Amino acid sequence: MSLIEVSSELAYQVNEPTDFLFNVAVSKTNYQSIRDESVSVTPEVSYEMFQIGDEHNRLLRLKADPGSFTLAYQAVVNLMPELDNPPAIDEASYGELPSEVLVYLNPSRYCESDRLVRFAQQEFVKLEHGFSRVTAICNWIHTFLTYTPGTTDSRTSACDVLIQRTGVCRDYAHLAISLCRALCIPARYVAGYAVGLEPPDFHGFFEAYLGNRWYLFDATRMAPTNGLVRISTGRDAADASFATIIGAAIFQQMTVTAKELTHEIQDQPSQDEPAVSTV
Amino acid sequence: MSLIEVSSELAYQVNEPTDFLFNVAVSKTNYQSIRDESVSVTPEVSYEMFQIGDEHNRLLRLKADPGSFTLAYQAVVNLMPELDNPPAIDEASYGELPSEVLVYLNPSRYCESDRLVRFAQQEFVKLEHGFSRVTAICNWIHTFLTYTPGTTDSRTSACDVLIQRTGVCRDYAHLAISLCRALCIPARYVAGYAVGLEPPDFHGFFEAYLGNRWYLFDATRMAPTNGLVRISTGRDAADASFATIIGAAIFQQMTVTAKELTHEIQDQPSQDEPAVSTV
Amino acid sequence: MSLIEVSSELAYQVNEPTDFLFNVAVSKTNYQSIRDESVSVTPEVSYEMFQIGDEHNRLLRLKADPGSFTLAYQAVVNLMPELDNPPAIDEASYGELPSEVLVYLNPSRYCESDRLVRFAQQEFVKLEHGFSRVTAICNWIHTFLTYTPGTTDSRTSACDVLIQRTGVCRDYAHLAISLCRALCIPARYVAGYAVGLEPPDFHGFFEAYLGNRWYLFDATRMAPTNGLVRISTGRDAADASFATIIGAAIFQQMTVTAKELTHEIQDQPSQDEPAVSTV
Amino acid sequence: MSLIEVSSELAYQVNEPTDFLFNVAVSKTNYQSIRDESVSVTPEVSYEMFQIGDEHNRLLRLKADPGSFTLAYQAVVNLMPELDNPPAIDEASYGELPSEVLVYLNPSRYCESDRLVRFAQQEFVKLEHGFSRVTAICNWIHTFLTYTPGTTDSRTSACDVLIQRTGVCRDYAHLAISLCRALCIPARYVAGYAVGLEPPDFHGFFEAYLGNRWYLFDATRMAPTNGLVRISTGRDAADASFATIIGAAIFQQMTVTAKELTHEIQDQPSQDEPAVSTV
Repeated sequence: MSLIEVSSELAYQVNEPTDFLFNVAVSKTNYQSIRDESVSVTPEVSYEMFQIGDEHNRLLRLKADPGSFTLAYQAVVNLMPELDNPPAIDEASYGELPSEVLVYLNPSRYCESDRLVRFAQQEFVKLEHGFSRVTAICNWIHTFLTYTPGTTDSRTSACDVLIQRTGVCRDYAHLAISLCRALCIPARYVAGYAVGLEPPDFHGFFEAYLGNRWYLFDATRMAPTNGLVRISTGRDAADASFATIIGAAIFQQMTVTAKELTHEIQDQPSQDEPAVSTV
Repeated sequence: MSLIEVSSELAYQVNEPTDFLFNVAVSKTNYQSIRDESVSVTPEVSYEMFQIGDEHNRLLRLKADPGSFTLAYQAVVNLMPELDNPPAIDEASYGELPSEVLVYLNPSRYCESDRLVRFAQQEFVKLEHGFSRVTAICNWIHTFLTYTPGTTDSRTSACDVLIQRTGVCRDYAHLAISLCRALCIPARYVAGYAVGLEPPDFHGFFEAYLGNRWYLFDATRMAPTNGLVRISTGRDAADASFATIIGAAIFQQMTVTAKELTHEIQDQPSQDEPAVSTV
Repeated sequence: MSLIEVSSELAYQVNEPTDFLFNVAVSKTNYQSIRDESVSVTPEVSYEMFQIGDEHNRLLRLKADPGSFTLAYQAVVNLMPELDNPPAIDEASYGELPSEVLVYLNPSRYCESDRLVRFAQQEFVKLEHGFSRVTAICNWIHTFLTYTPGTTDSRTSACDVLIQRTGVCRDYAHLAISLCRALCIPARYVAGYAVGLEPPDFHGFFEAYLGNRWYLFDATRMAPTNGLVRISTGRDAADASFATIIGAAIFQQMTVTAKELTHEIQDQPSQDEPAVSTV
Repeated sequence: MSLIEVSSELAYQVNEPTDFLFNVAVSKTNYQSIRDESVSVTPEVSYEMFQIGDEHNRLLRLKADPGSFTLAYQAVVNLMPELDNPPAIDEASYGELPSEVLVYLNPSRYCESDRLVRFAQQEFVKLEHGFSRVTAICNWIHTFLTYTPGTTDSRTSACDVLIQRTGVCRDYAHLAISLCRALCIPARYVAGYAVGLEPPDFHGFFEAYLGNRWYLFDATRMAPTNGLVRISTGRDAADASFATIIGAAIFQQMTVTAKELTHEIQDQPSQDEPAVSTV
């Protein structure tokens, strides 16, 4: 169990009445509870907060008038991840998969798993199934990709990343998700706050469905998985934009923090993390 | 109201124990009820039928042993579509959209709406908003695309279609969905049976969210929208494969039928259809 | 006839012995002669200058040692373009095309003309053939694209540009070339210096083969075509990089100038330019 | 030295006066001479035969009237390839490359070598340079690709092939060319007749520039390289269509043969072929 304080502040210059959909509030799950939370918008406008989907993403919708606009979010989160023993976690057979996870085998905007079946077979089909196979995918990605901000953009998909061998956290996650799906392992994108991430920012990682639940993985190894605070869950980053803007607003600046108030989280991520599940 | 009999038969040569997920059973909605339904699998194996997602797609999962395998589905469906007056149907503003439809504004595997915003603006932004604007998108697609089987495949996305200007029903639907989303109109893919479709086959069309509900559109104009029987609903065709195969099975043949038992459905689809909603 | 002074200076930080291929020297053609020219490299290293291909691109190859490295090029060019009357210039029929221009009908890295045949037919097939049809292509591009630095990169091809509707000079040229080739009009890329270009930079434009020679076009309308000084000619920008680097060198800065010493070139480019040919 | 008889016959249904450019006649090189050659067109129309480019591709241009149309080509070719000892053949350094080969380092329509630099470095940079490195590229492709007619089409590029891991001869060649160029080894596409190819067809292979000349490679290992008769040479398959059609003609059928009249060519291609150069 660990207590984590997260915050984000997003500032815009709004040029005409503009709708915003913010995706920065943390999720409420069995293993992640909110002890304290605040939202503040400047100037004050009314906003609506709601959950969508089976994943209970908590979105915040509002309309801002022309001028400066700032959203500030802060929360103290109680993280109680389930920690399992990796060697004991097998893949579920297709027939055992719960019906609600099947959709996470389908290809999506940034994860064209349908195109990567042969590649995934060539590299990973002979490995022992289970947690260790998803770890092998993460290791492959960590070995062959170079983390290079600026080499990808909002159009970049897993196939592009596999070709060019560079990317940032969302690209790493997209490629990992695609390879899992190509091997018939349900996988999905998670956006969140991450303790220990340098420089501080929103983080993108992923979950694979193994045994009978979802486990967190981060192919970038930039932050320990037991310090990840879930904001939203979806098929890929297309479902997890921290801000959707309908209108005319210019992004000005952003501050993101994630700080452990207790001392349970490992300092440095490593290849030998426990298996962490938080939903 | 109309009574429609639909059927499909899918035959495979199975080479090793193989999991199948079939997506051929019709949905149950407020406007579409099942009067009679049968599933038969040869040789007999146990199967599981379940609904997934908010869209209540009804899937059938089973495991087949090596040898011939056939699935036969048949249903008599009572179709009671809501028919509205197109000029009266406006688009919802972003702030009014129900939270559960927001996900249908996101780009997806075959609908890269994020890349088509400028094109959609150039062609359609000045048109009167509402049902007529989605009709204008369908007309544009009908005018500029040539329906040409064999020119696209399972990798073809809306951007490919816009470039090459040919495709089949699923491609038409993907481009229409992408353009709607690019204009901030929620849109999604519908797979179904279609009365009057020549040659008989499964059909792919789409829904746009207007006013306060989903309306059916078919940019191919190959079958009247009030004769469409919904099988499944999803972000794009990635969510609506009629058969997903995990293992080794070779598709042998398929028969699909859709016949009106009453006489309410127009003979030929035209540009001036009523606005049809079936969920 | 006009006298134009052009210059470019390119500075690098070289980290290991590195080969450079520079493509900044102006071409010698029937209509473009060099009155004065100088190349200076700092620190001094030996370099080789040679012409390649039927287009006589003049390349400069050298090997630089670690440290700062600068190439400075300067030339005074006598430009004697042939000015024709646009309405009098027809397209050549396929059978009349000289054998050496046929290669400029083939698709290339950034000009996938093979994918754009239907689109080109839909938009331009009914127009009167000849100079005016290529002008119509330029006008279409000028109307539907927005010149936006930063929206494209070295991977962006004509199909990408047609989808996203933004780009810079090379993207405008690539799309125009692709559309010409799709209509069976030979077209090729020209890199050069441009009098009046703001901000000063290398420029990318294109040539179409009409009647019995090549004519210059610039779909960006950013500089008059009779003030364009040719550096190199190729299938697309892949043949016209101003610098190819084999090794490890970091680009530091660049200065490009093009100044008319006489006063023959129109101040502002317009849609009604004369037909200019310079080879 | 070996004597090879090659032939091709191409039949079309011509629906309107149509221009054809045929690319089926064998090249004349220092190592490949034509002892006997015939072209016959039915019905008889006049045709023009010419060489283009530095590669001396011999093209045949004609205009056919509506009706059936057949081109029959036959030649007896004297093949005198230079056979070198692979271990002795090194790569040329960039500074030593003859100016006319530099263009074969540029990316092209089907060979996006610019996108594959990191992948090529990861897989092949540490290998010993020279003939053996290009052989390693061929072996990699032979290992990881599955030769599967029908999985690729005329739009498929090297990056697509690397993703999907299937293709036919032209796809194998495109990927090999791209990897060579990404490693700064000039490489180009060769179309030709191939003794021993099953089923008989035109063949696509490639050349890499090593030492001081071009060497033939065939990553498919479907035919011995010393039985390859060159038709044309270009940047990729975009330069080597066996027939370009401007008008309306429907391809009906094709027969291609390549038969050794002497007995010098090995029966089965293997990994341990001599280094063959034929230009």
